[in-house]
Amino acid sequence: MSRVVVDVMLKPEILDPQGDAVRAALGRLGFDSVAAVRQGKRFELALTGEVTPEAIAEVERAAGMLLANPVIEDFTVRLEDAPAAGDPASEG
Amino acid sequence: MSRVVVDVMLKPEILDPQGDAVRAALGRLGFDSVAAVRQGKRFELALTGEVTPEAIAEVERAAGMLLANPVIEDFTVRLEDAPAAGDPASEG
Repeated sequence: MSRVVVDVMLKPEILDPQGDAVRAALGRLGFDSVAAVRQGKRFELALTGEVTPEAIAEVERAAGMLLANPVIEDFTVRLEDAPAAGDPASEG
Repeated sequence: MSRVVVDVMLKPEILDPQGDAVRAALGRLGFDSVAAVRQGKRFELALTGEVTPEAIAEVERAAGMLLANPVIEDFTVRLEDAPAAGDPASEG
């Protein structure tokens, strides 16, 4: 089982009120060194079989179709470097 | 301006109905090679000043207090490798 990560963030030119609210809340908590926050989504996909270039291209197609809204969002697809704590192999 | 990324994911033992719904939708769209999906949040923080170990520790404290719910979520804090497309320096 291979793990692929899709990061989805609002395009830089799109306002992010949610991120702004987080930054304001951090300021109220005393975290003054945070100048700006952008909030996005992260998807961890477990693929059956090997991660071939074709499999990555398929995930990119899926991301552009379902995981992200390409009008207002950018996404990146990458292999997860190390097995995460939540690796299915370690469950149960 | 330095950029730090905080990834927040549900702990592996916590059910993720949102991720399951995404996986089901991918299946309906014909993406059969995706066996499982977990959905989480990604925060991009722009810090004023250098990213020192103290600054990272501060972000970890902020993440545990505001960005994640440590009861049901895990988080990781890391330096963004390369400046993203949305780097403030490239805006405007």
